[in-house]
Amino acid sequence: MADKKIFLGEEFIPTQWYNLNADFPTPMPPPLHPGTGKPPSPEDFAPIFPMNLVEQEMTPARWVDIPEEVLGIYKMWRPTPLYRATGLEKALDYPGAIYFKNEGVSPPGSHKPNTAVAQAYYNKAFGVKRITTETGAGQWGSALAFACQQFGLECKVFMVRVSFEQKPYRRIMMMTWGADCVPSPTDTTEAGRKILAQDPDSPGSLGIAISEAIEMAVLRDDTRYSLGSVLNHVLLHQSVIGLEAKKQLEAIGDYPDVVIGCAGGGSNFAGLAFPFLADKIAGKDIHVIAAEPTSCPTMTRGPYGYDFGDTNQTTPLLPMHTLGHDFVPAPIHAGGLRYHGMAPMVSHAVNLGLVEPRAYDQIETFEAGITFARYEGFIPAPETNHAIAAVIQVAKQAKEEGKAKTILFNWSGHGLVDLAAYDAYLSGKLTRYELPEEEIQRALKALEGLPKIG
Amino acid sequence: MADKKIFLGEEFIPTQWYNLNADFPTPMPPPLHPGTGKPPSPEDFAPIFPMNLVEQEMTPARWVDIPEEVLGIYKMWRPTPLYRATGLEKALDYPGAIYFKNEGVSPPGSHKPNTAVAQAYYNKAFGVKRITTETGAGQWGSALAFACQQFGLECKVFMVRVSFEQKPYRRIMMMTWGADCVPSPTDTTEAGRKILAQDPDSPGSLGIAISEAIEMAVLRDDTRYSLGSVLNHVLLHQSVIGLEAKKQLEAIGDYPDVVIGCAGGGSNFAGLAFPFLADKIAGKDIHVIAAEPTSCPTMTRGPYGYDFGDTNQTTPLLPMHTLGHDFVPAPIHAGGLRYHGMAPMVSHAVNLGLVEPRAYDQIETFEAGITFARYEGFIPAPETNHAIAAVIQVAKQAKEEGKAKTILFNWSGHGLVDLAAYDAYLSGKLTRYELPEEEIQRALKALEGLPKIG
Repeated sequence: MADKKIFLGEEFIPTQWYNLNADFPTPMPPPLHPGTGKPPSPEDFAPIFPMNLVEQEMTPARWVDIPEEVLGIYKMWRPTPLYRATGLEKALDYPGAIYFKNEGVSPPGSHKPNTAVAQAYYNKAFGVKRITTETGAGQWGSALAFACQQFGLECKVFMVRVSFEQKPYRRIMMMTWGADCVPSPTDTTEAGRKILAQDPDSPGSLGIAISEAIEMAVLRDDTRYSLGSVLNHVLLHQSVIGLEAKKQLEAIGDYPDVVIGCAGGGSNFAGLAFPFLADKIAGKDIHVIAAEPTSCPTMTRGPYGYDFGDTNQTTPLLPMHTLGHDFVPAPIHAGGLRYHGMAPMVSHAVNLGLVEPRAYDQIETFEAGITFARYEGFIPAPETNHAIAAVIQVAKQAKEEGKAKTILFNWSGHGLVDLAAYDAYLSGKLTRYELPEEEIQRALKALEGLPKIG
Repeated sequence: MADKKIFLGEEFIPTQWYNLNADFPTPMPPPLHPGTGKPPSPEDFAPIFPMNLVEQEMTPARWVDIPEEVLGIYKMWRPTPLYRATGLEKALDYPGAIYFKNEGVSPPGSHKPNTAVAQAYYNKAFGVKRITTETGAGQWGSALAFACQQFGLECKVFMVRVSFEQKPYRRIMMMTWGADCVPSPTDTTEAGRKILAQDPDSPGSLGIAISEAIEMAVLRDDTRYSLGSVLNHVLLHQSVIGLEAKKQLEAIGDYPDVVIGCAGGGSNFAGLAFPFLADKIAGKDIHVIAAEPTSCPTMTRGPYGYDFGDTNQTTPLLPMHTLGHDFVPAPIHAGGLRYHGMAPMVSHAVNLGLVEPRAYDQIETFEAGITFARYEGFIPAPETNHAIAAVIQVAKQAKEEGKAKTILFNWSGHGLVDLAAYDAYLSGKLTRYELPEEEIQRALKALEGLPKIG
């Protein structure tokens, strides 16, 4: 039997990130300034992001050099191992090969530091002293805390209060890495005080936390804001995943027929899939699937239009599949997939027919995750379980059709800090949830009055 | 700069375990049967352990072949990476090299599966259908649950009730891997019922849980018991750690001056150190340090004598450093180091002057762990922090003496399921604790009436 896992030496870490924007057969619609209705200028972003990242957000270049300092930190856990899922293949009696890229080996346990480290580096290089951000369950906040520590930057995380209180583990990770993590809403920002005046016991929301983080960044010249998904430069940084996977498969003479990732904001999916989409655009026969929850079916059911990235309508308008900026997703355990929109680049790829979105109920995703944990050992994050549900579905169908397809998927993170979710599933406390049709009507309504695409 | 981490291909996983018993300059004292006062025969162990493991426990052979099936499972995470701790070196301004062997990359996150997988294999080969064990904080129980799942064995874990209720995460891991984990004391064993009759709300103890697990194993012919540390065959299985580390250092042309591990029962320390002790016995100049807590200072302060492995006096008498089988350690956060005795092989090595034991207070171990987490990224287990405290101490002293010693230590596991301990430290809730001298007098008293060594 071939090796169970494929490592490559550190010299095989890609030295450039890949930008799919250079290869789309038709270009993406631009973001729009909500005031002028025109594409924002780089200066419009200046109070929020450092200019070197704004340039990356807008670059048409196919390849962007990865700075030496970022590569140095990547080497803490990259290249991540590519595994042959022989246990899962056996459990499914699958005649083909199933591979997964294990992004759970990073210090915070997910793919998030691929961009957190890059963003911390560019902020530092621009002279920024402090980065603010928001976090829900804490995946992004912990990754940014780790990254800021590596570059000696202060890190201020506004964590949704209900998560701060109920999910202490990632908060403790942030503190261990020296970040200042506070329950949002706080009384230190205008946005927070406004909410607290209405409801002193507010449980908080991602929308409020974003507003607090942006407000603090805009007010101080030495401070900028950081976002963990959705934007072009975030997806760019994540491309190391797919670039490495390609090299690793090449080293053993294989190539995928199907590429799968779970998608919340879209960054881990894009990170694995985009370097393969480049081949698909060039003519390669390859099936790319993005797995999302039925409770937050942005791509499978949400309309495509211009919408705000946050509840409080402070961001530029982004062209994306969206359930509306006022959408409140059900409290499923895959916190990283509870976002109303989808990265503009992923949305565009879906519209061009390059990516097939599929939605899965959380019950079947945990079923898939338990199967994976029992046959492959490693316990996946609840988000990752959506990708695994898709893998199992694809493998079963291929087997029925007598095809031995090679499947590759992104194991975006481990579930060791999310075990309470497994407990809820194992003790029968989870229920099925399909988003009602009224919610789609509400989403369409939320987009009324906003510019249309095209 | 050299690579941050050293991987080797799966073909470099050792194919034999190393047994230090073949190389001790003077042989270890044998265990004794508490009834006869004589060394127990293999048959005495038969109701508890499968005979193939009993043979391994007693073997004088230097090398023992690792079965193919065990190697197949090891490949899920072995060889584990050897890291150059460049961040820590920089933080300490240390002129030498510091390496750590990252055993935290296994599915349960520690070194424990090295022996759990081997024990599950031998039980399966012997025809056993079910394995029982006890667990405190859950490190061992979760490793055995994972291993049993790989070989299709039932796994019954008696988890100390207070941990079952207060530390749910590893319990959920066990359930995810299909194990039956129950809070001990239970009403399903004589030992458990006896305790419950006296105290229906008993919080349980490791001693009670061991008694329940052994009772259930002895009563059923298809069931055996498994122990996660202390015994010879457990230390044998862990030798893969040191054997791999040697090959990895050899690949980059280095060799340690100092080897360090933390020691509770002794298995992770022995796993790294014993293959290097072989070289020391052969004349190599190498300093080997075992780090233990000041609250449970078995080697640094406990007498050396024959003692029981469990509170209820059901095991054979083992020749070891011990604080007495009735010792109740303080509730420090390094649950894996709260054991009254020390593996007979490690105790013997200490007595021969091959190993220097040092004790560290939990405050300084968490200080060391936070330093590590901030400069190396990965968050260590509270047990591992003891080894890190020793590393920092040794590095500082070497630097003062103008020596650039090469230090190697065992990073026995990650702390992602132990973050509550970091929270306690960061919020100033931990206190210093030195074991009072009366406790040593009590230990000596506990050994009175038991056979003496030599």
